[in-house]
Amino acid sequence: MFIRNTWYVAAWSHEVEGAGLFSRTIIGTPVLLYRKEGGDVVALIDRCCHRGAPLSVGRREGDCVRCMYHGLKFDSNGACVEAPAQERIPPQAKVRQFPVVERHRWIWIWMGDPALADPSTIPDTHWLDDPQWRSLPGYIHYDVNYLLICDNLLDFSHLPFVHPTTLGGGEDYAAIQPKVERLKDGVRITRWTINTEPPPFAKAVQEWPGKVDRWNVYDFTVPAVLRMDSGMAPTGTGAPEGVRVGAVEFRGCQALTPETENSTHYFFAHPHNFSLDQPEVTRSIHRAVVDAFDEDRDIVTAQHRNLTLDPGFKMMAFGIDAALSQFRWAVNRRLEEEGTAAAQKSEATS
Amino acid sequence: MFIRNTWYVAAWSHEVEGAGLFSRTIIGTPVLLYRKEGGDVVALIDRCCHRGAPLSVGRREGDCVRCMYHGLKFDSNGACVEAPAQERIPPQAKVRQFPVVERHRWIWIWMGDPALADPSTIPDTHWLDDPQWRSLPGYIHYDVNYLLICDNLLDFSHLPFVHPTTLGGGEDYAAIQPKVERLKDGVRITRWTINTEPPPFAKAVQEWPGKVDRWNVYDFTVPAVLRMDSGMAPTGTGAPEGVRVGAVEFRGCQALTPETENSTHYFFAHPHNFSLDQPEVTRSIHRAVVDAFDEDRDIVTAQHRNLTLDPGFKMMAFGIDAALSQFRWAVNRRLEEEGTAAAQKSEATS
Amino acid sequence: MFIRNTWYVAAWSHEVEGAGLFSRTIIGTPVLLYRKEGGDVVALIDRCCHRGAPLSVGRREGDCVRCMYHGLKFDSNGACVEAPAQERIPPQAKVRQFPVVERHRWIWIWMGDPALADPSTIPDTHWLDDPQWRSLPGYIHYDVNYLLICDNLLDFSHLPFVHPTTLGGGEDYAAIQPKVERLKDGVRITRWTINTEPPPFAKAVQEWPGKVDRWNVYDFTVPAVLRMDSGMAPTGTGAPEGVRVGAVEFRGCQALTPETENSTHYFFAHPHNFSLDQPEVTRSIHRAVVDAFDEDRDIVTAQHRNLTLDPGFKMMAFGIDAALSQFRWAVNRRLEEEGTAAAQKSEATS
Repeated sequence: MFIRNTWYVAAWSHEVEGAGLFSRTIIGTPVLLYRKEGGDVVALIDRCCHRGAPLSVGRREGDCVRCMYHGLKFDSNGACVEAPAQERIPPQAKVRQFPVVERHRWIWIWMGDPALADPSTIPDTHWLDDPQWRSLPGYIHYDVNYLLICDNLLDFSHLPFVHPTTLGGGEDYAAIQPKVERLKDGVRITRWTINTEPPPFAKAVQEWPGKVDRWNVYDFTVPAVLRMDSGMAPTGTGAPEGVRVGAVEFRGCQALTPETENSTHYFFAHPHNFSLDQPEVTRSIHRAVVDAFDEDRDIVTAQHRNLTLDPGFKMMAFGIDAALSQFRWAVNRRLEEEGTAAAQKSEATS
Repeated sequence: MFIRNTWYVAAWSHEVEGAGLFSRTIIGTPVLLYRKEGGDVVALIDRCCHRGAPLSVGRREGDCVRCMYHGLKFDSNGACVEAPAQERIPPQAKVRQFPVVERHRWIWIWMGDPALADPSTIPDTHWLDDPQWRSLPGYIHYDVNYLLICDNLLDFSHLPFVHPTTLGGGEDYAAIQPKVERLKDGVRITRWTINTEPPPFAKAVQEWPGKVDRWNVYDFTVPAVLRMDSGMAPTGTGAPEGVRVGAVEFRGCQALTPETENSTHYFFAHPHNFSLDQPEVTRSIHRAVVDAFDEDRDIVTAQHRNLTLDPGFKMMAFGIDAALSQFRWAVNRRLEEEGTAAAQKSEATS
Repeated sequence: MFIRNTWYVAAWSHEVEGAGLFSRTIIGTPVLLYRKEGGDVVALIDRCCHRGAPLSVGRREGDCVRCMYHGLKFDSNGACVEAPAQERIPPQAKVRQFPVVERHRWIWIWMGDPALADPSTIPDTHWLDDPQWRSLPGYIHYDVNYLLICDNLLDFSHLPFVHPTTLGGGEDYAAIQPKVERLKDGVRITRWTINTEPPPFAKAVQEWPGKVDRWNVYDFTVPAVLRMDSGMAPTGTGAPEGVRVGAVEFRGCQALTPETENSTHYFFAHPHNFSLDQPEVTRSIHRAVVDAFDEDRDIVTAQHRNLTLDPGFKMMAFGIDAALSQFRWAVNRRLEEEGTAAAQKSEATS
């Protein structure tokens, strides 16, 4: 069960290029993405209305796509405009089109009611293509339900344990109880670790004279989008008071998009605003993040397998789970609202 | 759910040879095939009545087969004739025997009520071993329900789209609405394309001075047997009127046999009656057909995966689907009849 | 459905060594095994009570284990003794501990009510580490329910058919009806074959002047433990009357431990009391047993696949199935008792 009336990240811009047909399953639905000759991205259901064959193994013809099973041709609105041995195309011959918005190298898609699709509600991730910031695009695939990955991202106390040689740092990092604030459709988490060891990935790109003050301040919002101000500065230079001197800063952008009930797309980047002329720094940071996310995938997949063995297992909440519990609550509220809306709609039309 | 009282192709003759034990699952039932010393084919259920072990990993002893788990021995009628440490073999100790008929290099099997098995109802496929025709035997395995493959074979408008470099030809081929006639237990489809480009596979074996008239006339009958008169002749030589001058002719024979609900055996050959002394022509035609059927399998398997994602998807019928709809109707009628017959039988015996 | 209040073999002693964390799923439950610094074996559920991550990918800290997801630390009784950012650990924060007993190179585990775990009921397998006997430890994994393997072990008439070149021998071996006696929680099977060919594995380690008298006398008890006195002596030397002259003797120990409903752990060894100074004899015997058990796995797995095709298949009992039927009856009685006990317990607490 997934929230439908929300913007999901469908792809990185560079995944949908040229005259190619790109297919990705999103919340259980196969989606075809391609660019019109003018460059605009089109999203259609990747399933011919005739016999269900995927259009993505079809053929581009101008801004149209032809199904290469029996030759039906669809325009970029999804309307069937040609069918073999068929003079008149019935108006119901069409495939579903989805609203899409391309912004800052991410292609966002709206899987719900198109009338509700408001691009102004797309979260700001301008750091992904802002010239003052640098990052490399990341994507990994998980074979678990997306909520287990949300749980992971909502509690950074796992950093010293899962990521001791990448993002981690001293175990004092986990000893802090972060501040958790409720947002519309999500939570804001603020975690400061004062006078701590710089983590390995930060040591790899810069000399540090001693301990640092480290912060991770992020919003995690429905459906599963993380935007984070993080960084560190030498202890004593006033970072907790808002002075960022000798600091390194990042603006992590991450989005989880369910593929099916048991698999998930994970898009991420970790923009930094220093050493902009040193691509090896960007690569080093990206490499550390990819390695760390592979570590997350290992533990979360192992957790998933354990949960599969005993579907009756009840997790036990600790203090560190406050953000996680609030976010699951926000998701459930949205699912209930959509259930109510769907029920009202079907009542109104009956 | 499968039709039971019908003849299925179980194997090519050459698959069941010598003293070997050949196993193939047919409509969900494991079947053992072997030849008696005199050469006649035997079909028994491939499951010992004792503990369920497959007889096909057993041992031939004369015309009998011995289960190599605990040593029970069965004669070619399926009767248990020996059991270890057992003086008297109970009469119910037997495995099911199925009627089989070997004809024109195909071994046909009857999975239903043996009393209804009438060999005269086996479709004629004599082109498979007629000295005036040449072909090579084909077999491929599908991981989809057999009805999706029937759909494919009942609508040749897919030829220019799925098979542009093998069986295909110009897209004018798909623009024709074929004639569809109802048969007992199936349909006859007649498709003529006048003044069209010869398809690649025909160009590969012969020079053509110009356009051709091309025909595909085939019966598709329950359970899923296709027998086709096809070919082409230079346009203007009178083929549509029944004169076959300078023509190449084929008599395609194809049979689908469900393995399970989601997998299918596909037997086929494409006999031709020209260049009989040139084995390279036979090989070229066979190669084109195998390549084309691999193309079919790619698109039909992709279609199957899409349908699996959303079991609620409703296909939309176009004019080209007339034959397909009639055949599915014929299949359902037979399933209903067998359901009724089974119900009456169980009523009579209760 | 598995018997819970019984001792299962969880591992060979050498599988749980040093500071390692060993994980094995037993009757559907993931279990972590490790040794305390003093050498005692600990068994905890391999699932952190917090979010369900496996402890076996965690870290040993003295006699404790730390979950490497969020850093919870558990002592060897399963009590949580540390949690990040948590001053007071709630008493319900613990993971289940299972009673374990290490005896004669096997680690036994009790998955049921700990109050009922009585080590005196562990079957005697002292031949596994008795200096008068030699053997090598065996383990194989099956992808079938354990009861199909029990069936195999409860009827040795399969030996000449499944194992002709290893354990087998003449088919006269299968012609004997063994004596079957009911035991508490199992059966005792006594099989004597008089004046028979020595089996291949025995010929490989010793010269035999002629025929032998061969015996297999074994107890097979709940949950699925086989302990066997087997061997052979030259015919005429009085073995059937209890005189063992010129005999070779074995004390086979085997245990099946269900992993899941459709997979099983199989522990075995085949101790002998002759040629104790010749390790090549021990290796030869072990090799023959491993080869034979691979043969069993082939046929039992094929049987399992056949049964999966038709869950409605009814096995047919022959005379040779007496032991097998009695053992299945014993298993079912135990399952019923545990069902009754569970029902009474839930009644008492409600």
